[in-house]
Amino acid sequence: MNLIYDHGGDIYGTSAELDFSVNTNPFGISEAVKNVYFDSVRLIEKYPDSDCRILCKKIADYENRDTKSICVTPENIFCGNGAADIIYKIIYALRPKTALLTAPTFSEYENALRSIGCGIHRHYLKEENGFVMDGSYLEEKHADIAFICNPNNPTGRAADSRLLQRIAEKCRAEGAILVIDECFADLADIETMRNDAVVIKAFTKTFAMAGLRLGYVIGDTKIIEKIKRVSPPWGVGSVTLKCAEAAIGDTEYIEASRAFIKSEMRFMYEALNRISGVKAFKSDVNFILFKANPGLYEGLLERGILIRDCSNFEGLGEGFFRVGLKLRKENIRLLEEIEKWQCR
Amino acid sequence: MNLIYDHGGDIYGTSAELDFSVNTNPFGISEAVKNVYFDSVRLIEKYPDSDCRILCKKIADYENRDTKSICVTPENIFCGNGAADIIYKIIYALRPKTALLTAPTFSEYENALRSIGCGIHRHYLKEENGFVMDGSYLEEKHADIAFICNPNNPTGRAADSRLLQRIAEKCRAEGAILVIDECFADLADIETMRNDAVVIKAFTKTFAMAGLRLGYVIGDTKIIEKIKRVSPPWGVGSVTLKCAEAAIGDTEYIEASRAFIKSEMRFMYEALNRISGVKAFKSDVNFILFKANPGLYEGLLERGILIRDCSNFEGLGEGFFRVGLKLRKENIRLLEEIEKWQCR
Repeated sequence: MNLIYDHGGDIYGTSAELDFSVNTNPFGISEAVKNVYFDSVRLIEKYPDSDCRILCKKIADYENRDTKSICVTPENIFCGNGAADIIYKIIYALRPKTALLTAPTFSEYENALRSIGCGIHRHYLKEENGFVMDGSYLEEKHADIAFICNPNNPTGRAADSRLLQRIAEKCRAEGAILVIDECFADLADIETMRNDAVVIKAFTKTFAMAGLRLGYVIGDTKIIEKIKRVSPPWGVGSVTLKCAEAAIGDTEYIEASRAFIKSEMRFMYEALNRISGVKAFKSDVNFILFKANPGLYEGLLERGILIRDCSNFEGLGEGFFRVGLKLRKENIRLLEEIEKWQCR
Repeated sequence: MNLIYDHGGDIYGTSAELDFSVNTNPFGISEAVKNVYFDSVRLIEKYPDSDCRILCKKIADYENRDTKSICVTPENIFCGNGAADIIYKIIYALRPKTALLTAPTFSEYENALRSIGCGIHRHYLKEENGFVMDGSYLEEKHADIAFICNPNNPTGRAADSRLLQRIAEKCRAEGAILVIDECFADLADIETMRNDAVVIKAFTKTFAMAGLRLGYVIGDTKIIEKIKRVSPPWGVGSVTLKCAEAAIGDTEYIEASRAFIKSEMRFMYEALNRISGVKAFKSDVNFILFKANPGLYEGLLERGILIRDCSNFEGLGEGFFRVGLKLRKENIRLLEEIEKWQCR
């Protein structure tokens, strides 16, 4: 039996009780979202607002929170059924012939691009650099579209913002579309992109709302219009809309999450690296990539713990694993089990 | 201001208190769904099962309920984010060059087909026949794909099952894909298609779950595989999955809904036709098409009632309207307001 799933989170195919394969906000959903969810039972019967008008306005306000001038208007936003849906919609709207991806990175860019027969070129991130992107990216040949996940999944590393700016300039000069996937950016303490790129974001990770499915894209109105043309109506459910509207206003929750992740990640990085035979890579966000003895995935699963086996990521291989942060008690349980396995 | 929306249900763009523009189950959601919804708050944080394994099994059992042999297996089913999403996915998976649509019919087939540049040919249903499909459909020239909505939206009329069988045979002989949209079929007392066609169904109408978004397609495994290749993972949310699993087992609710609709539609049809200047067409399901004085839409909206102006349906025109059934009290309120408007 092939135990390794294409993504994290296949708790449905296993009997794990602790799921470290997901990498959503370790705080879980906020009280505000919970309350709105219960109130929204009457919305099950109602069609959602197909244009997500209230949510787009709230997202625009949220995205402009730190800027003096208005960067993002509701017309620059399209909401879809999770970030994966947004990735497919961008690709279906633009139908690129060639694409540049990093390796390793989130697998859905490749899956979506292959489904339209797009050629894929890879920029390999170097293990000896801790998988951090460097200036050699600028030497890659032209592609119609480039996807950069920032911070990157499964490495957790953010790219230097000046380097991203130079990449954006190169793409613009070459008439290429640059897509920055910032699904994890709000949980990291990093600079984000707004101009010069199409930006993907999601409620899945930031607000731990993986079960309700909500992703969005920020782009110029021409691209947003193209995406709308390939999108069916009512793409986001009405309960999801209400919960998302409640979540995005809750900046206190986001800031508390970010602070916790920053300190807990320091603890996790150091603790993992103290375990014999484990090499953890630095991470800027709420999940961490590490090397350990092959077989760790199966070993932990027998102990009721699901982690992400990263051997099927292009650019990685056997012995690479990813875990998402949880709260301290669960993180310690995980560390103890990894240690037991490594030292058995 | 253009008050007429592309679909029914744009209560978000109006201030209507009574929405007859939607055509979902007039009973609303069942108690079983409501209870499961409240229990599912913990699922907001969980990724859904990307393969919808439990639901596909339950749908297969439901679809086989009246047959002695097994027609539908879970491998014949793909679940998506509402029927509109399923329509786009079928078209993106098959990428037909030419399509045959009836007129009038649901507008999303055309929107989805146009988004891939597919040529569209129309078979016009005749008003003098009450918009019932007849044998002349068989004389239409070949198209790569044909969409038939049964019962049809916005007319509410079902096609003769022997005619549909002959259409299916013609399509098979010509190597064309026949798609039957049965989104309303479970609310009507009609024969449904299982073999020889790709069938679209939805929880939106049958179970009044428009806000949670769940549609599915039944087809041979080759077509299902093609659809999966153009579909992002986690296409259906985890709360939606749980509620749908609870809904589909509830055959008592479906049967009670169907019985109510049958008798209430008889009442509505007769009552509408008694109003001066109104001509209602026979319907097999929970919504009804009628002709009345132009301006009725705006007139009713001023009285807090939203109906579907059907003037923008290809094959209809000014003065055509559609209303969904509600419970008797609301239906009478609607009839009174239409009468007042017609006789003002």
